[in-house]
Amino acid sequence: MDIIYGKNAITEALEVNTRKINKIIISKSIHVDGKIQKIKELAQRNGVIFQFVAKEKFTQYNELNHQGIIAFISPIEYMDLDEFLSQKHNNASVVMLDGIEDSYNLGSIIRTCTCAGVDAIIIPSRRNVQVDSIVEKVSAGAVNHIPIIKVNSPTGALKKMQDTNWWVIAAEANAKDNYYDVDYTDMNFVLVMGAEHAGVSQSIMKMSDFQIKIPLLRNFNSLNVSNALSAIIFETVRQKMCKDLKTKR
Amino acid sequence: MDIIYGKNAITEALEVNTRKINKIIISKSIHVDGKIQKIKELAQRNGVIFQFVAKEKFTQYNELNHQGIIAFISPIEYMDLDEFLSQKHNNASVVMLDGIEDSYNLGSIIRTCTCAGVDAIIIPSRRNVQVDSIVEKVSAGAVNHIPIIKVNSPTGALKKMQDTNWWVIAAEANAKDNYYDVDYTDMNFVLVMGAEHAGVSQSIMKMSDFQIKIPLLRNFNSLNVSNALSAIIFETVRQKMCKDLKTKR
Repeated sequence: MDIIYGKNAITEALEVNTRKINKIIISKSIHVDGKIQKIKELAQRNGVIFQFVAKEKFTQYNELNHQGIIAFISPIEYMDLDEFLSQKHNNASVVMLDGIEDSYNLGSIIRTCTCAGVDAIIIPSRRNVQVDSIVEKVSAGAVNHIPIIKVNSPTGALKKMQDTNWWVIAAEANAKDNYYDVDYTDMNFVLVMGAEHAGVSQSIMKMSDFQIKIPLLRNFNSLNVSNALSAIIFETVRQKMCKDLKTKR
Repeated sequence: MDIIYGKNAITEALEVNTRKINKIIISKSIHVDGKIQKIKELAQRNGVIFQFVAKEKFTQYNELNHQGIIAFISPIEYMDLDEFLSQKHNNASVVMLDGIEDSYNLGSIIRTCTCAGVDAIIIPSRRNVQVDSIVEKVSAGAVNHIPIIKVNSPTGALKKMQDTNWWVIAAEANAKDNYYDVDYTDMNFVLVMGAEHAGVSQSIMKMSDFQIKIPLLRNFNSLNVSNALSAIIFETVRQKMCKDLKTKR
């Protein structure tokens, strides 16, 4: 069993209702507000145990910002890459993360990708943070709304995708092309975002079909990876929406 | 005195060297790596006391992810709005935050704005998180690279800006126009981002010249405010860079 915490994340999990929730515990000492009331109702509807407990029960979870409520839930189900690729895709987008170490960044990226209609997220099973309770909370429950694919070999996965008509785009601070100079509207693409300091690994850079950067207007450090992803992925959304509009006219 | 922590934030503060640093303490029990060595050298060059102390000295700062190093530093200096407006501005951009409660979001927004060449950030002195040590750390020291203006009355500040040829743009999930339909290349604008749940306040919505939204492709919750800001602000950068290119041809 995993645990999830935070009112929004628990509400999301109950509403989507794709994972088994064993029970929800809530501290007797917290104020029962509208959100907690809603969680209680959803729990009852789904037949989930909802238990008021002494606040001491939360001592072992003190490093989490749990707001006095925790749910015990089955782990998220990862999708298999082959299964995903066997589906029909048309101008689809996938985001692959390469060496992201921070749970806040992963959670934030999952949330942004979900909003931007990204079709799946690929994370390596090693050298990358996994979906834990912090990721789940920061994603505001988005982990339940987007397929997440775990792969042992990122380069192997990309090779397989290239062989089935996907294009690999690597985001890299020193790339020559600006991210908005690529036309994203007429291909299936997988966008690879690297770790904040190391960037996208050399082996992936070498096999990538496009290398893009975000031009920075002040000579300062670099963007946070989740904010960089947001700028790029919404440019792909912009291009698709503007093209749809032109086609309709 | 404020405190700042984290190797990157302290290095940044020493390099920029605009604020007085009283002393830097470092735990005797941590490994002195290249980054710490660099901090030590910068401290010596700037005449800042650099002290190894027992790790117990850090007990009171345990809620911070301090990595065993803390600097005591004069608070950041806010810029005065009138002073900022008295400068010459040409196609300038300002970001105003309206009710942001989370230090991670504020720090992340300051970092993104700095990279995107935003000319200043305005935060209300009430009902908004202030620049604290978490903000400074998450911004990776960007707080030292961009003017931050504190105002008592956000609407008063916006009125004053409108009177001096600035346009007010409010980002709001339910707005009619998409953010990429506005031409940002030929005006001074102030972009107002609201709190995650409440959005931009009604009084600001009413006086705004443009209301924009980010179209979301999945019916899910909403974007995190710092990721929303990133998508919008880099669209303004894209427009400006593409226009420059056309002009040059």
